[in-house]
Amino acid sequence: MERYDIAIIGTGPAGISAALTAKNRNKSILLLGSAALSPKLTKAHRIDNYPGLTQITGADFAQKLREQLDTMGITVTEGQVGAVYAMGDYFGLQVGEEMLEAKTVIVAAGVMQGKLLPGEDRYLGRGVSYCATCDARLYPGKTVAVLGYSAEASKEAEFLAEIAGKVLYFPMNSAIPKESENLVILHEKPQEILGDKTAGTLRTDQGEHKTDCIFVLRDAVMPETLVPGVETDGPHIRVNLQMQTNIPGLFAAGDIAGKPYQYVKAAGQGNVAALSAVSYLQNAGK
Amino acid sequence: MERYDIAIIGTGPAGISAALTAKNRNKSILLLGSAALSPKLTKAHRIDNYPGLTQITGADFAQKLREQLDTMGITVTEGQVGAVYAMGDYFGLQVGEEMLEAKTVIVAAGVMQGKLLPGEDRYLGRGVSYCATCDARLYPGKTVAVLGYSAEASKEAEFLAEIAGKVLYFPMNSAIPKESENLVILHEKPQEILGDKTAGTLRTDQGEHKTDCIFVLRDAVMPETLVPGVETDGPHIRVNLQMQTNIPGLFAAGDIAGKPYQYVKAAGQGNVAALSAVSYLQNAGK
Repeated sequence: MERYDIAIIGTGPAGISAALTAKNRNKSILLLGSAALSPKLTKAHRIDNYPGLTQITGADFAQKLREQLDTMGITVTEGQVGAVYAMGDYFGLQVGEEMLEAKTVIVAAGVMQGKLLPGEDRYLGRGVSYCATCDARLYPGKTVAVLGYSAEASKEAEFLAEIAGKVLYFPMNSAIPKESENLVILHEKPQEILGDKTAGTLRTDQGEHKTDCIFVLRDAVMPETLVPGVETDGPHIRVNLQMQTNIPGLFAAGDIAGKPYQYVKAAGQGNVAALSAVSYLQNAGK
Repeated sequence: MERYDIAIIGTGPAGISAALTAKNRNKSILLLGSAALSPKLTKAHRIDNYPGLTQITGADFAQKLREQLDTMGITVTEGQVGAVYAMGDYFGLQVGEEMLEAKTVIVAAGVMQGKLLPGEDRYLGRGVSYCATCDARLYPGKTVAVLGYSAEASKEAEFLAEIAGKVLYFPMNSAIPKESENLVILHEKPQEILGDKTAGTLRTDQGEHKTDCIFVLRDAVMPETLVPGVETDGPHIRVNLQMQTNIPGLFAAGDIAGKPYQYVKAAGQGNVAALSAVSYLQNAGK
């Protein structure tokens, strides 16, 4: 299996900036995220303070970034990273059912907005899942709930409905999936995840639903869920000015590395993270 | 006299980014530097890793930035800042013979490349000057030396030649000024500034020149020369992730705030510095 020089998680301005600089320095890169780029980016109405692009819309900015990636020969590997494991002299990245490898990692996955549901953290991996494509096969014929926070949640729910017996879909912020015999849309507000050893019940403002798994599909997750052992500060990964984290070889950039949540700040940090990763590879003789 | 909300020193990517964001937040700004923008920027052959601008030349990037400043109604005040003084609840900025005022300051003046000449620091203000337009009138009919490091040094030397009796011009990195009866060009390498209470002699690799003042015209100066009392780390101002310095209300961004020296890193830091200045103004009730 190829062990990449630099894995970059996220296709917002931070991740793309890191990819451009890393590629420019001739490193092999694995850029993981949505090829359509960050939904938060593409939805921006107008950006007034990005130097060099006068009053650009988010959609136009995203289009320019996609063209730039093409020009530089950079491809986006579609996939959601479940977790990043520090293995000593390299990192393992769990992407769906695959484990990919990289010598360094730049986390530019965006920041989780809002709060975890009560019980979400406790039952994660035990009846709560963040990845439909990873875990769908565990629930053939079963009843699952999907909390659709992310832009792609509706598509993931449709995929789940092909395998599970019944999908209860709660549209939080997402598009509405296609209803079917297997997929029911419930306009209720999830309030708590209940269970015993594993999660079994989703309580909403209107009642309780028994389920075999609750899929919570967000645009971003808490950093300590993504990278076990990383030092955090609330929803942020703790970094220094060189975008280093407490884990050697792991860097963070963009919203997940702290406020302000701004495009050009994210792009700047992605650049710094990439150059720090390049230095790390040089110093480690990798 | 108008006391600006935010004075921004420097018209490279960091200063311009700070100006765009500060203006966007409705602050009154004083953007000080060259209206032609940073020479380091305009001379860049090709920039490959600035997100959103594919393989752009420095000249084209500078043109886009100038247009963006125009669109936002931001003007550049031409002038070299001699020093910034923290006055308690505001800052005084010495620009030529004027003293301008601002509630906060963002230093984005670029980093000094290379080393000081032996004696330069010691005699600064006593026979060594960094500003021809400020100090020319002190030397009518006298002999002065000009060490031309900066892009604009040749023009400053021509101006000096109108006042001084004789200008000895040492082209370090600059264009060559127009020779005249008063202006002699010497292709020698300055090595030391000598003197007693004041500087009196420039020693080069080829001999010694008696002078009444030695003008050392660089694109950037040492931070402690620009801002007395600021904490530094070599040629850099010490900052934290919010671009705060040790002086409340004073922020730094871009190359002067540390490596890497990259356009998008500078632009990102300018954005953060501006938002930190906005917060400071809010918290101080200014």
